[in-house]
Amino acid sequence: VRILVVNPNTTDAMTRDIEASARRVAAGTTEICAISAPWGPRSIEGHFEETLAAAATVEAIAAHRRDVDAFVVACYGDPGLYAAREVVDVPVVGIAEASMLTACTLAHSFSVVTVIPRILPMLRDLVRRYGLESRCASVRSSGLSVLGIGAAMADAGEAILQEARLAIDVDGAEAIALGCAGMGPLDRWLRERLPGVPVIDGVAAAVKLCEALHDQGLTTSKVSAFKTPETKELVGVGPALRSAVGR
Amino acid sequence: VRILVVNPNTTDAMTRDIEASARRVAAGTTEICAISAPWGPRSIEGHFEETLAAAATVEAIAAHRRDVDAFVVACYGDPGLYAAREVVDVPVVGIAEASMLTACTLAHSFSVVTVIPRILPMLRDLVRRYGLESRCASVRSSGLSVLGIGAAMADAGEAILQEARLAIDVDGAEAIALGCAGMGPLDRWLRERLPGVPVIDGVAAAVKLCEALHDQGLTTSKVSAFKTPETKELVGVGPALRSAVGR
Amino acid sequence: VRILVVNPNTTDAMTRDIEASARRVAAGTTEICAISAPWGPRSIEGHFEETLAAAATVEAIAAHRRDVDAFVVACYGDPGLYAAREVVDVPVVGIAEASMLTACTLAHSFSVVTVIPRILPMLRDLVRRYGLESRCASVRSSGLSVLGIGAAMADAGEAILQEARLAIDVDGAEAIALGCAGMGPLDRWLRERLPGVPVIDGVAAAVKLCEALHDQGLTTSKVSAFKTPETKELVGVGPALRSAVGR
Amino acid sequence: VRILVVNPNTTDAMTRDIEASARRVAAGTTEICAISAPWGPRSIEGHFEETLAAAATVEAIAAHRRDVDAFVVACYGDPGLYAAREVVDVPVVGIAEASMLTACTLAHSFSVVTVIPRILPMLRDLVRRYGLESRCASVRSSGLSVLGIGAAMADAGEAILQEARLAIDVDGAEAIALGCAGMGPLDRWLRERLPGVPVIDGVAAAVKLCEALHDQGLTTSKVSAFKTPETKELVGVGPALRSAVGR
Amino acid sequence: VRILVVNPNTTDAMTRDIEASARRVAAGTTEICAISAPWGPRSIEGHFEETLAAAATVEAIAAHRRDVDAFVVACYGDPGLYAAREVVDVPVVGIAEASMLTACTLAHSFSVVTVIPRILPMLRDLVRRYGLESRCASVRSSGLSVLGIGAAMADAGEAILQEARLAIDVDGAEAIALGCAGMGPLDRWLRERLPGVPVIDGVAAAVKLCEALHDQGLTTSKVSAFKTPETKELVGVGPALRSAVGR
Amino acid sequence: VRILVVNPNTTDAMTRDIEASARRVAAGTTEICAISAPWGPRSIEGHFEETLAAAATVEAIAAHRRDVDAFVVACYGDPGLYAAREVVDVPVVGIAEASMLTACTLAHSFSVVTVIPRILPMLRDLVRRYGLESRCASVRSSGLSVLGIGAAMADAGEAILQEARLAIDVDGAEAIALGCAGMGPLDRWLRERLPGVPVIDGVAAAVKLCEALHDQGLTTSKVSAFKTPETKELVGVGPALRSAVGR
Repeated sequence: VRILVVNPNTTDAMTRDIEASARRVAAGTTEICAISAPWGPRSIEGHFEETLAAAATVEAIAAHRRDVDAFVVACYGDPGLYAAREVVDVPVVGIAEASMLTACTLAHSFSVVTVIPRILPMLRDLVRRYGLESRCASVRSSGLSVLGIGAAMADAGEAILQEARLAIDVDGAEAIALGCAGMGPLDRWLRERLPGVPVIDGVAAAVKLCEALHDQGLTTSKVSAFKTPETKELVGVGPALRSAVGR
Repeated sequence: VRILVVNPNTTDAMTRDIEASARRVAAGTTEICAISAPWGPRSIEGHFEETLAAAATVEAIAAHRRDVDAFVVACYGDPGLYAAREVVDVPVVGIAEASMLTACTLAHSFSVVTVIPRILPMLRDLVRRYGLESRCASVRSSGLSVLGIGAAMADAGEAILQEARLAIDVDGAEAIALGCAGMGPLDRWLRERLPGVPVIDGVAAAVKLCEALHDQGLTTSKVSAFKTPETKELVGVGPALRSAVGR
Repeated sequence: VRILVVNPNTTDAMTRDIEASARRVAAGTTEICAISAPWGPRSIEGHFEETLAAAATVEAIAAHRRDVDAFVVACYGDPGLYAAREVVDVPVVGIAEASMLTACTLAHSFSVVTVIPRILPMLRDLVRRYGLESRCASVRSSGLSVLGIGAAMADAGEAILQEARLAIDVDGAEAIALGCAGMGPLDRWLRERLPGVPVIDGVAAAVKLCEALHDQGLTTSKVSAFKTPETKELVGVGPALRSAVGR
Repeated sequence: VRILVVNPNTTDAMTRDIEASARRVAAGTTEICAISAPWGPRSIEGHFEETLAAAATVEAIAAHRRDVDAFVVACYGDPGLYAAREVVDVPVVGIAEASMLTACTLAHSFSVVTVIPRILPMLRDLVRRYGLESRCASVRSSGLSVLGIGAAMADAGEAILQEARLAIDVDGAEAIALGCAGMGPLDRWLRERLPGVPVIDGVAAAVKLCEALHDQGLTTSKVSAFKTPETKELVGVGPALRSAVGR
Repeated sequence: VRILVVNPNTTDAMTRDIEASARRVAAGTTEICAISAPWGPRSIEGHFEETLAAAATVEAIAAHRRDVDAFVVACYGDPGLYAAREVVDVPVVGIAEASMLTACTLAHSFSVVTVIPRILPMLRDLVRRYGLESRCASVRSSGLSVLGIGAAMADAGEAILQEARLAIDVDGAEAIALGCAGMGPLDRWLRERLPGVPVIDGVAAAVKLCEALHDQGLTTSKVSAFKTPETKELVGVGPALRSAVGR
Repeated sequence: VRILVVNPNTTDAMTRDIEASARRVAAGTTEICAISAPWGPRSIEGHFEETLAAAATVEAIAAHRRDVDAFVVACYGDPGLYAAREVVDVPVVGIAEASMLTACTLAHSFSVVTVIPRILPMLRDLVRRYGLESRCASVRSSGLSVLGIGAAMADAGEAILQEARLAIDVDGAEAIALGCAGMGPLDRWLRERLPGVPVIDGVAAAVKLCEALHDQGLTTSKVSAFKTPETKELVGVGPALRSAVGR
């Protein structure tokens, strides 16, 4: 299986960390490649940045739509996920979606521990979009910025650990989804400190779901929501996106 | 009140129709201006097109963020609405949101009659995002394309009327929200044929909500979800968007 | 637009305050008149009082049903709202409904800050009736009595401010709906102390929604829930109500 | 146990039918008395009539609040139920509530078959108020008027039977709640024609719940929503209601 | 009415306590008999034990399916309830279900106070299964073990009382359902300490519902979910269960 | 990865079909073994049979709890799933859960096509238990019996195909979950006839999820709902189950 992992932001150092997380769990027969968004914000911490990143992510995926067997959208808001499903024929999995669905196989309820507080409403909307509000005990902020995690990994671990403990003790969570692609390197460290608690890195979960879908011969539904876009003029839009819709 | 109505697609003829719908209901003291998205699809009928249109809409709004008192996003998916709220200080109202909230003041439950079937899941997600699933009797497709409405207005009216009647008789709807900005010119024609049924044009509803919010001195919340974006580098992004975030 | 604002309780001093709040935001072309309920409790702080007030409010609205262009029901339980919609042909807007719908255009989620604790379950039921449970972060009690607010406005402001802050900090609210018609005079004072937080007076919101509905040519749905009452005998009921149903 | 069954409408013939339904199931030690509302509509088929009936029902219950051990509100909208709970110390059970809760002990899901179509939204709201939307397969109209049932009982039976069969075959209902106090005399006739399907008369169900609550020594909660009304002036209100609140 | 109360665990001392609770509220014409499960865990505090107890409970009920008029399943997870409904023709009521439905007639919302923390998710699932999530303020753990309650009744009362007070003060509960069959003997003691708060013993509530259903001539629905099991071979299963399915 | 697939019924021919479905998708490094329940019904088509099968399934899993790396419960009601999670330390995945979660990565909404009508309410409850009611368009019956599928595979395919088409055309489903372990052999045949529609065999989906969880180093949460059972006496229970709880 060839999987292209798209980091929707434009920080290449983070893309390399994501690639490492992806490779760590990939099957021996899986080939992983990770790329950054071609343009857009350095990190994604709000609706504005997510809106730009969604367009950039779809552009990246459209450009590679015939090259690989599956795509991962590696930012916890899953920007551009549904749009990407329209422009490719192979599976596209978001890391938020993957981490939440994986948590559902391991626990009655899970919490997401994410970055700065302003994205809490956005992630709560995402939980609702995926229909998982009855399975999600809480979405909690660690106070970390996206780029701050990689810059001070040990401190980040402590901040996440503290919120994870509150999620378990106060909110009744039984599993923790790491609410930022940059938190992947911390999953094992956190598991050691939270015995009996599944700690889920969305990047890893998404890679494994891609493999699983591929091996089952499953691809995204094309009968309604994710049909190939209608053929129509895209004004002022580059060739990668235009080619995706036959113009 | 100066209101800028942004048509998220790039079809200027439709923008002029939207402007006319907006002006028809505006107060005497309101100044309406409508513009098309600066780039993107000719019409918006799926997640892919909406994702591009969202970015283009935010760019248009960012460019005018100091010029007007309120913005209307005039496409029934409300593309870029939440992002736009982050980059301006004045109210931003989407036509889907406006039509649904308006329907709630007039009826126990409403239905949306929209364009081609592929956008039904997208609009059902939107209803859920706004938390109105218990108020929405159904979302129905008229089978019309966005640009087909303006091209054959009389036929479009008949197609919408037929679905509106099914929404009322079968689904229990008591009001009809017109699920495309291009359907505005048909609201009065439909009301005549559906006595006792409020038929709501989202463009009109949004303009009136903008006036209402402005007159109450209300602006978008800035304490959490819609805070001004963090100051950070936007790689490969034009000056309008960059200026919105202080870079 | 001629709008009759009905205060469902029988305290005229409060009616005058409500009238002032309504006039403060009304358009230049709007004519506001406010009246008290013709009979019933001095204030409304529970189901019993609300049940009486609902009947009295409908009586008042029936008596004026041919005189004005829209009605506002100015008590935060919206007593008699649905009944009133049956007996008149023009829009009838409740202040709870108006404040909540207005909040939805400005914030992901809102909280209601209301009077004494015993009405919390009643208002939570109202949120559910309107289908807004996913948008409402909390309903909080300030501990104030309805008539105590007007009697000691400065103290009331402090009490409301304290709960509003908890709603924002603890419950994740991004906007505050003032949960009593008597709190309207405090909206600007509270906004100054809660920068970036929309503070919504239901009376103001309802007046503006009435204007908006009127300007769109919209009236209450008459196809099902709000049809004119069946013609039938009303035993022991006065002429205003009897005339509303053709007996 | 002494149970007062209040028919919220003013049709004495219907009150006598309700009394007979109540007596048919009452325990040997139970004393049943039924009264009509002291004023108000001849039947209740909408919000307007329900609002008047709620006030009249509370007045009737307040007048007898020291005389009996439990009250039944015998109209399928449960008018005045929550208000009545505030003014008495003993249990007050509504027939809609009783029939739905009883259905939940016998079936995964139930349907309500009620009178004319205009009350469907009202009853759907009631199902939501009681939190039973996931248990209620549908609310269906038989097309009958409240007073038409008693006038032509055999025809009414056929009309209800037809909708009950649709509820079972199309909507997946496993039990039928009779959605009008006047339908009680038909329960056995319907059960014979719907083998294996519980058909529930709300009057009977409410009487039995009153006995059950009384025998358990249970009374309505008085800690919050149903506290005794605050002591305050009720302007232009008769002595029965005034006495209920200590004025 | 002859009611067989089945204690799904194998602790006979607890069975006798349950029988006493049942008899305390039974009507004079009701005959109560209580039995323990024929095999299985001494107490039920998790999914594993509940799964075994469900099978044992169904076996006990199948063995007595022609002997009595109604069955009570007397463990707060209602183990085997739906299965038991398939194998008998008379009503089968669970104590969790009975206590929650009873609470709904007395209060806007209730809390369950139960035993050790590990069963909280199980009971929250049960609340959802019964569709009562909007009526349930919280499920709280007293920290007690099932068998610890009977062993130290006074201490148990204090532990339950403390959580009940938190449920009322913090979670907004207005009634308390005792979340273990062994807590029945404490209901009156708790009511004295929680004036105005209904405290509901599920065993008592279930017995009274059985009587109520029987007196209304109601039995479990047999049209879909609770149809008699298909006739088929049960490998390695004893005669009581085999006879229930005609093999 | 060594995966033990447990068929909760006692039909060995079906177990062999399930094993073949599992092996078809397993990774090269995965070892699959399938066993039947040690006792219980020949097939599972209702609550009664499921209750017995749950106990038998847990017994089978307890007996092998130290032998393998993951378990699959291969019956579409997921009998005994939560209990099994308590008695083992490795992942346990149910085929219903696996198929639904997999569908969520491919489509806005899915339908389940299952066997005879009587299990529809049971599967609707399961959808709710997993919190996926907003993602599930419908649960439909093919009218087939569990054992009838294997006996007449071609006819079964036609019956499932017909309901799948209705699910897509009428209910808005975009993916189909095969609602019986015996339907697995038909997945490819159905996919050919439903182009663009993911058709998901729960057995395959569960095997791939087990591999995915194992490769991520994830195991079931042990902090609350799925803790190892308390150590206590199990009366009349065999050694496999007793050993699982240390007695």
